[in-house]
Amino acid sequence: MSDSTAQASQSQPQANVASASDSPASSAAAAKADFSDSPSLVELQRRCNEFTTARDWDQFHQPRNLMLALTGEVGELAEIFMWRGECPVGLPGWSEKDRHHLGQELSDCLIYLIRLATVCGIDLPAAAAAKIVENGRKYPTDKSFGSTKKYTDL
Amino acid sequence: MSDSTAQASQSQPQANVASASDSPASSAAAAKADFSDSPSLVELQRRCNEFTTARDWDQFHQPRNLMLALTGEVGELAEIFMWRGECPVGLPGWSEKDRHHLGQELSDCLIYLIRLATVCGIDLPAAAAAKIVENGRKYPTDKSFGSTKKYTDL
Amino acid sequence: MSDSTAQASQSQPQANVASASDSPASSAAAAKADFSDSPSLVELQRRCNEFTTARDWDQFHQPRNLMLALTGEVGELAEIFMWRGECPVGLPGWSEKDRHHLGQELSDCLIYLIRLATVCGIDLPAAAAAKIVENGRKYPTDKSFGSTKKYTDL
Amino acid sequence: MSDSTAQASQSQPQANVASASDSPASSAAAAKADFSDSPSLVELQRRCNEFTTARDWDQFHQPRNLMLALTGEVGELAEIFMWRGECPVGLPGWSEKDRHHLGQELSDCLIYLIRLATVCGIDLPAAAAAKIVENGRKYPTDKSFGSTKKYTDL
Repeated sequence: MSDSTAQASQSQPQANVASASDSPASSAAAAKADFSDSPSLVELQRRCNEFTTARDWDQFHQPRNLMLALTGEVGELAEIFMWRGECPVGLPGWSEKDRHHLGQELSDCLIYLIRLATVCGIDLPAAAAAKIVENGRKYPTDKSFGSTKKYTDL
Repeated sequence: MSDSTAQASQSQPQANVASASDSPASSAAAAKADFSDSPSLVELQRRCNEFTTARDWDQFHQPRNLMLALTGEVGELAEIFMWRGECPVGLPGWSEKDRHHLGQELSDCLIYLIRLATVCGIDLPAAAAAKIVENGRKYPTDKSFGSTKKYTDL
Repeated sequence: MSDSTAQASQSQPQANVASASDSPASSAAAAKADFSDSPSLVELQRRCNEFTTARDWDQFHQPRNLMLALTGEVGELAEIFMWRGECPVGLPGWSEKDRHHLGQELSDCLIYLIRLATVCGIDLPAAAAAKIVENGRKYPTDKSFGSTKKYTDL
Repeated sequence: MSDSTAQASQSQPQANVASASDSPASSAAAAKADFSDSPSLVELQRRCNEFTTARDWDQFHQPRNLMLALTGEVGELAEIFMWRGECPVGLPGWSEKDRHHLGQELSDCLIYLIRLATVCGIDLPAAAAAKIVENGRKYPTDKSFGSTKKYTDL
């Protein structure tokens, strides 16, 4: 690994830098880029339901089958990051091809997560909203500010 | 986070859940129950960004840290299903407590998936929409109908 | 890696496998079939070290890289089980090809687990022996007999 | 499980661990430290079988249940590494408590991997030996030297 970028990033493994030239501020800005307004979760759920039914795949989409499929996709996602060493926010230096692949694997995880919630009868948008509120109670800003401690240790 | 939708959903997070006494037919129906219209992915992203910044946690939310955190949450989700043997669609017989716990773990996975996409600069709703279209091309309905074969074997 | 034990084992990798025609009773018996006496964990560690060094891969085998690689392999393992519904002990009805593939993915998980322990300086055989003893204390036979309760609930 | 080797190893489970004050060079050396000669995989399998049977847990140890349990343990392992940023070989700076916890989670992964192989009728030591040989063919030293390319791209 004689690549100088790799060497540089290795010496500052937690640098919040989007690229060798980007300032931390611009990478933070990039990382804050908004998602598109649509499709929403309920719209994605509808498309996934339609996709599944059109192929007569409901018979295969049992909860534990989907749980294992999700595990498989998370594994594929992990493989994208596996030999890269630390990756700064914004993924400076990644090719468009690699970014596209990453978007595909993140999407596969989301699709199976939506399918799993669906067959389990869980209203995922509502549950996620409630969980963020609950997390807020478990991690009060004053006690958890700048800390990675688990809530049980705060 | 005083959002009234979140508060309301929190008090009834399993409104769409099939009850243990439902017949398989109605469980299947329940499993098709729509997600709530809100919050959308972009709204959840906004709440997650706000949550993270309020605690000064952006410094910890590097891509690989979040990848590992997601792996951790998927592990917790898997543990919910681990000693149960096969679980039919709609999860008949599951207690409200278990369903609530399931909703929490699905939500944690979604939250870290959103955060990971965010710090990687991936527009998750757009990527997921594109992936469903791509999957449709890889799995034409006529060739994949009722089959679990991988597209490379169709 | 021309080690004769490895070569020999390669020609009969499924010596202990239950055949598809086995009765449940003999499948259970097969499932109790002993592992081969060799290679031991320390011998596998030695072969993995040698393999890695011969390819100049030590530079890539950082702890978190290996953690992500392990996650990837566990995902591939999960995919073997994902569309099958429940699978009885001994895997009756599985083809030799599927069993061979399963053995390969289980092996990849073991190989990365060994590598991860190695670069972290953990003596895995000793740690595993100690953990089994510890588990025995957490799950006394009288309290945990026939129960899947977590030790904190016993 | 009153096995004296296990008891002995339990009292010194981190005998091979690099200390926080080690130089990078000695950490690398420590990371090459051999595993203990015993217990071997077949001996660990025997202890796991005994442990399971003594608690009447064979009824729960179906292949997919164990696959999900393994996923859960890999998640717990990932959580150890999640907020740390990059971790050099030998884990310099890690406390004895953290190293001990790491050894426990690596062990839990190994234990479920052994159990899963066992109930699937896979001879894990033989399969792993064969896989290392196969990997050697897929990654010839001359083509894969110093490269992270997948064998399909070599």
